[in-house]
Amino acid sequence: MTTIRNRVAGRTLAPGDRLPSIRGLAASIGVSPSTVVEAYDRLAAEGLIRARRGSGFYVSDTAPLPLKLAEAETPKARAVDPFWVSRQSLDAEDGVLKPGCGWLPAEWMPNEALRRAIRSLARADDAMLAYYGNTRGSNALRKLLLGRLAEEGVAAGPEHLMLSNTSTQALDLICRFLLRPGDTVLVDDPCYFNFQALLKAHQVNVTGVAYTPAGPDILAFEALLSAERPRLYITNSALHNPTGATLSPQVAHRLLNAAAASETVIIEDDILADFEPDPTTRLAALDGLQRVIRIGSFSKTLSAAARCGYIAARPDWIEGLVDLQIATNFGGPSPISSEIIAHMLAGGGYRKHMEELRRRLVRARRETADRLARLGIAPWLMPRGGFNLWCRLPEGLDSGEVARAAVAEGLVLAPGNVFSISQTAAGFMRFNVAHMADPRVYQVLAEALKRAA
Amino acid sequence: MTTIRNRVAGRTLAPGDRLPSIRGLAASIGVSPSTVVEAYDRLAAEGLIRARRGSGFYVSDTAPLPLKLAEAETPKARAVDPFWVSRQSLDAEDGVLKPGCGWLPAEWMPNEALRRAIRSLARADDAMLAYYGNTRGSNALRKLLLGRLAEEGVAAGPEHLMLSNTSTQALDLICRFLLRPGDTVLVDDPCYFNFQALLKAHQVNVTGVAYTPAGPDILAFEALLSAERPRLYITNSALHNPTGATLSPQVAHRLLNAAAASETVIIEDDILADFEPDPTTRLAALDGLQRVIRIGSFSKTLSAAARCGYIAARPDWIEGLVDLQIATNFGGPSPISSEIIAHMLAGGGYRKHMEELRRRLVRARRETADRLARLGIAPWLMPRGGFNLWCRLPEGLDSGEVARAAVAEGLVLAPGNVFSISQTAAGFMRFNVAHMADPRVYQVLAEALKRAA
Repeated sequence: MTTIRNRVAGRTLAPGDRLPSIRGLAASIGVSPSTVVEAYDRLAAEGLIRARRGSGFYVSDTAPLPLKLAEAETPKARAVDPFWVSRQSLDAEDGVLKPGCGWLPAEWMPNEALRRAIRSLARADDAMLAYYGNTRGSNALRKLLLGRLAEEGVAAGPEHLMLSNTSTQALDLICRFLLRPGDTVLVDDPCYFNFQALLKAHQVNVTGVAYTPAGPDILAFEALLSAERPRLYITNSALHNPTGATLSPQVAHRLLNAAAASETVIIEDDILADFEPDPTTRLAALDGLQRVIRIGSFSKTLSAAARCGYIAARPDWIEGLVDLQIATNFGGPSPISSEIIAHMLAGGGYRKHMEELRRRLVRARRETADRLARLGIAPWLMPRGGFNLWCRLPEGLDSGEVARAAVAEGLVLAPGNVFSISQTAAGFMRFNVAHMADPRVYQVLAEALKRAA
Repeated sequence: MTTIRNRVAGRTLAPGDRLPSIRGLAASIGVSPSTVVEAYDRLAAEGLIRARRGSGFYVSDTAPLPLKLAEAETPKARAVDPFWVSRQSLDAEDGVLKPGCGWLPAEWMPNEALRRAIRSLARADDAMLAYYGNTRGSNALRKLLLGRLAEEGVAAGPEHLMLSNTSTQALDLICRFLLRPGDTVLVDDPCYFNFQALLKAHQVNVTGVAYTPAGPDILAFEALLSAERPRLYITNSALHNPTGATLSPQVAHRLLNAAAASETVIIEDDILADFEPDPTTRLAALDGLQRVIRIGSFSKTLSAAARCGYIAARPDWIEGLVDLQIATNFGGPSPISSEIIAHMLAGGGYRKHMEELRRRLVRARRETADRLARLGIAPWLMPRGGFNLWCRLPEGLDSGEVARAAVAEGLVLAPGNVFSISQTAAGFMRFNVAHMADPRVYQVLAEALKRAA
């Protein structure tokens, strides 16, 4: 490889020139022809040379590609909209601090268990490694998930459950399946910003219901359902994103009755539930998957690199969703991802891992609240679990302004209005307590608060 | 674990009973408490017992799950529609023969290289294993893909390229991005059945153009574009699915000019192109990604278990598609899948692997054509590559009837009309030559032909 690289660099081989024959080069430098073949193939993969089928290898006549692709793609300046936090957090360079992001730092994740699962996958049979998998997804993982649902009191059999690529894609699939143009969808206010981004992609009216420490404002909820008869209500019952609140049993009960009266389907996104110190009885358990659809994934607790989500719902809806998933994605998650997740769950270490995470987060939550207090920032409530802290900024400050000032200094924040459909959360900000250890966070934040004042 | 299983089976521990304390059991059977903890966790994962947070372990009071989930989910009898082949092939049990499926047998796939890639992934850093990845997808894989595009003469930089979960999801994303309700979309007749299933999920008019051995019937194409001005035309230029035909340069040129005149965007699905013996100059190379969008994946050539697709298009479209993919899927492929694919492509073995596949397929195509000839079945054309053989049945036979008769005997076929928007292919069938080695295929097929006559 070095021989060829040198000849190209020194112009002995010019762009478009045919490379020495494999046997010729092998003889002249004293290696086997198969070594030359492998070298040529690797250089071709790099783009330095090209194989022309049936004709041999040639020096590429296009400029070599830039080594750092990311440099060519600086995200354009954008409005503080529901994509603000996603694009900034997902595409941030190393070294950028991300208290606005919605996941745990890599060091907190169960990476040794993940590596074991991956190594185990390397020993799987050919069919597992080559094929698309069945249409509902890995039987092994579905069996484990049905066990977890049973543990929660949700009576569900295999016909109630399918795997999806991600919990977001699960939600999108359900929206495509159940919504007609002009339908109304109800979300919490505030709610996870990507729900809003997703619903924009569907031609529906979106309405918000104010959120309280016990769940949605139940009187407002009942009135909205009666007046607007939304087709869907999308929520997190346990450790609501962004507020960290948890649905109380009384609100849950009234909410389900109101939904029954207005024929509203409820999508319960479970994504942070495993962070609860003890599990609350959630909507799918009370309702039994008649009117509630449960979705979730393990991207917050196991890995966001092995994407795998799931949907639990009425069997006739699952049947239709499976067809829609074939039409729009030719299946669900990568079978490789679902097998990795199944391996990690079956191994038995998940419970211990979550206990450890909960312990770390209790401490991080307390420390973060203390340090934010010195800046005049206070939590709207102290959540029972999870990594989100939904906080009020000092009076008069606009969190969008603060976020804009901060991002220029390498700090990505999550300003309140990206979460609020009514845009009434300008005084709020969501902090991820697992990303708040670095003192620089508070320095830059203090500066940004001053600049925005 | 055996101790507990025995006690549950013997009713010493009844459903709902609390299990012995960890220390108590450890002491009584003489193992360490951590061994008991691990045993309890594994039994909980199996569903035999449950952990109640803060309270201990209890015997599950729901019946254990059936061991074979698949038994509970026999696919219901369905019409021979675009989902027929998908559901039958993807959910078929072991032992079912699948000459109607659209992929190679597992033994033909580069599984050793895949295992090496997986083992390499187990040594990746924590960030790679834990995080969502950037919004356009793995830089390493995108760099390799840009090299392949350059090799083909498609001038593209990083801003022209993004990764998707699958090529089907890529197509779906583009449809959501570019189509408005009431738009017209043009497909080939016949075309890949899942294009039709996908377009049904969008509120558009779908029209077909007859396919010839050199590409779409160019006079009909020009007339259709002029009359209907379709927003999109979706096609495979190399080794068209199902016919195996390849676009001729003259048809390609006229097709692009007609599309420019009617402002039709062309989506070129590349999925089988690497099976060509020598590469033809395809639409994206002629057009330079102005009006053509190139999509593809490696599910046919590397693995369908590590799902990863890509889209090459105008930079402003890529920017919008990335946002839409965040909204509807919170990203593209599993980073783990894209790293595996990148590793396999960078290793340099891809070229050799494809040469070997092409050799095997030449032989399989010839043998299959010979054996089908004895049943009076003849190819519409002999393709230059790939595994599909689009064949005419003996006069008067309906391939849907033949397929229904065959599936009852454990043979999944692909009847012509699932590919034809105008339902004018009842006399045709698509055979996958890589699944035609088993003599049982021809026995059952012969029987089915008789029964359908």
